[in-house]
Amino acid sequence: MSKDFSLSCPVPHAPGETVTLAHGSGGRLMHQLIGRIFLSAFTDPALHEAHDGARLEPCQDRLAFTTDSFVVRPLFFPGGDIGSLAVHGTCNDLAMCGAQPMYLSCGFIIEEGLALSALDAVAKSMAAAADEVGVRIVTGDTKVVERGKGDGLYLNTAGVGRIVAPNPVSPDRVKPGQLVIVSGDVGAHGAAILSVREGLKFETALKSDAAHLWPAVRELLEAEADVACLRDLTRGGLATALNEIAQKAGCAITIDEEKVPVRPEVEGACEMFGLDPLYMACEGRLAAFVPPDHGDRTLAALKAAGGSPVVIGTVGEKPAGEVRLKTRIGVERVLDMLSGEQLPRIC
Amino acid sequence: MSKDFSLSCPVPHAPGETVTLAHGSGGRLMHQLIGRIFLSAFTDPALHEAHDGARLEPCQDRLAFTTDSFVVRPLFFPGGDIGSLAVHGTCNDLAMCGAQPMYLSCGFIIEEGLALSALDAVAKSMAAAADEVGVRIVTGDTKVVERGKGDGLYLNTAGVGRIVAPNPVSPDRVKPGQLVIVSGDVGAHGAAILSVREGLKFETALKSDAAHLWPAVRELLEAEADVACLRDLTRGGLATALNEIAQKAGCAITIDEEKVPVRPEVEGACEMFGLDPLYMACEGRLAAFVPPDHGDRTLAALKAAGGSPVVIGTVGEKPAGEVRLKTRIGVERVLDMLSGEQLPRIC
Repeated sequence: MSKDFSLSCPVPHAPGETVTLAHGSGGRLMHQLIGRIFLSAFTDPALHEAHDGARLEPCQDRLAFTTDSFVVRPLFFPGGDIGSLAVHGTCNDLAMCGAQPMYLSCGFIIEEGLALSALDAVAKSMAAAADEVGVRIVTGDTKVVERGKGDGLYLNTAGVGRIVAPNPVSPDRVKPGQLVIVSGDVGAHGAAILSVREGLKFETALKSDAAHLWPAVRELLEAEADVACLRDLTRGGLATALNEIAQKAGCAITIDEEKVPVRPEVEGACEMFGLDPLYMACEGRLAAFVPPDHGDRTLAALKAAGGSPVVIGTVGEKPAGEVRLKTRIGVERVLDMLSGEQLPRIC
Repeated sequence: MSKDFSLSCPVPHAPGETVTLAHGSGGRLMHQLIGRIFLSAFTDPALHEAHDGARLEPCQDRLAFTTDSFVVRPLFFPGGDIGSLAVHGTCNDLAMCGAQPMYLSCGFIIEEGLALSALDAVAKSMAAAADEVGVRIVTGDTKVVERGKGDGLYLNTAGVGRIVAPNPVSPDRVKPGQLVIVSGDVGAHGAAILSVREGLKFETALKSDAAHLWPAVRELLEAEADVACLRDLTRGGLATALNEIAQKAGCAITIDEEKVPVRPEVEGACEMFGLDPLYMACEGRLAAFVPPDHGDRTLAALKAAGGSPVVIGTVGEKPAGEVRLKTRIGVERVLDMLSGEQLPRIC
């Protein structure tokens, strides 16, 4: 479906103006919306070509490809919004494949009645987040659904990146003996969303950790750390990510609760609601699996990228597919995957 | 966000079983849903790697990249469903760039309460449509939103294709003197959606024209037709597509109403509702712009691909950016872009 981002004619919108069904029609109003909001925020020449798709620059490297939809509620939260999240999330998935984010697509599903000012803020935030990591927003699409058939805005981004890691970065390369390293404290994104929904106030403000992980991966590759696997700790948090990897790799993973960094305000919010920070989503944290003799350079590289990395555990052989937690009181227990989730719609 | 299509464990679902919020959680239920529905329908090894993104095969050709979200109502309609449409739509956008569709991502935004059987049917339909054109579904994502915050299912696909056209296929190459050729009758997709929504019955069944356009483009390229521009006639129909191209190319386009093929049942449905078939969406039709001496081979190639192509008009110089229609009664009038659209949510 054609060139949904075309025909530029940026006109400022009146306060209180909202998206109507006709804005999703393919007609003149849609072209105006795209011109006013999207083309003024997204300035890539490939996007402005107004064609059905973007031609990418020739690339000799192998490519990675990923997608994510974002349904976070509320749209704006401390430390980010659905727009920056949609850029971080997809770029981070590319980085987790050892790939430098190159190109993004974006698909907007807008509920009739959304304030144009909100849409504008989201688009600007996407553009800023994309600039920050050097990824190009090159193609897009806009749909509008009737009032009551959405929730303000859903956003999809797909991403293409060039794989720069010399070896595959994949759960298949996780082996017994490797270290499990997290790049910083966990759970802040989920806790920040929770705090807005529940109207919590803490002495120290809860803020999402949403951020780009590519700079950390770049540092790791420059330090020639032999990274077997990387995983960003999003939906389901650290515990779910480790379970997925243990199952895929057919290994056991043991981590030390005491070593997992959790900020006091995140701990506090979790306690208040009976939630476990190990299952709380992050949007700017990764777990890295590396051979023991690459631990030091991994820690140094993650630090150089602004993180506060910690070795939290190791990979073992048995029981295959299981994650075990050494608790603070010294007991070891299974750290299972949750059945559902503690907090829906955090991303 | 990680590996949303991982951990296969296909178990048949009970009749009447529906999607719950927990299915979107990142936890065990989500992994089961993915295993039961998506991994059993989508069998690409890249997808089954259960990583954050897919590694694509090395490719020497230049790539094209596009995205589309699908919010069609109802989810199933004569001639297709949201799943096949999401594959056709994005693959067709790649084809319109002169690119062979290679890889697809898919993002599911599911409303709580959707029948698992419906989701299953959509996934199977996507897989079949992808097989048909030889495109690989290599990465995906699943989100679930609360009841009343969606409309059953929204679907996003992004696509990567390899550009095989020797010259750019782009509105910028549309020049005065070129012929405007449509690949077949227009408006059937929109009319089919309308007929289901309104419960219409015709003697001849109205059926969407949704189909792959890559085979037609491949024939065009094999025939060495110097295709300046291609455009699929989706949202806003033929009239909107021509307006977009006239504006982008800075040319005038004149078409002959009498020559535009419209099936009688589409004509009938449009008359009944006071709609204009020139603005009705197609999902398997294209307009091609070619030099006059390439007209014959273009028609032959489109015919070889199963179409019923017709020269409907020509590109002129002035008035720049305008589309003019020679009506059946011999009058010439401006064929403008509509402000909104006749029929919302047709794709």
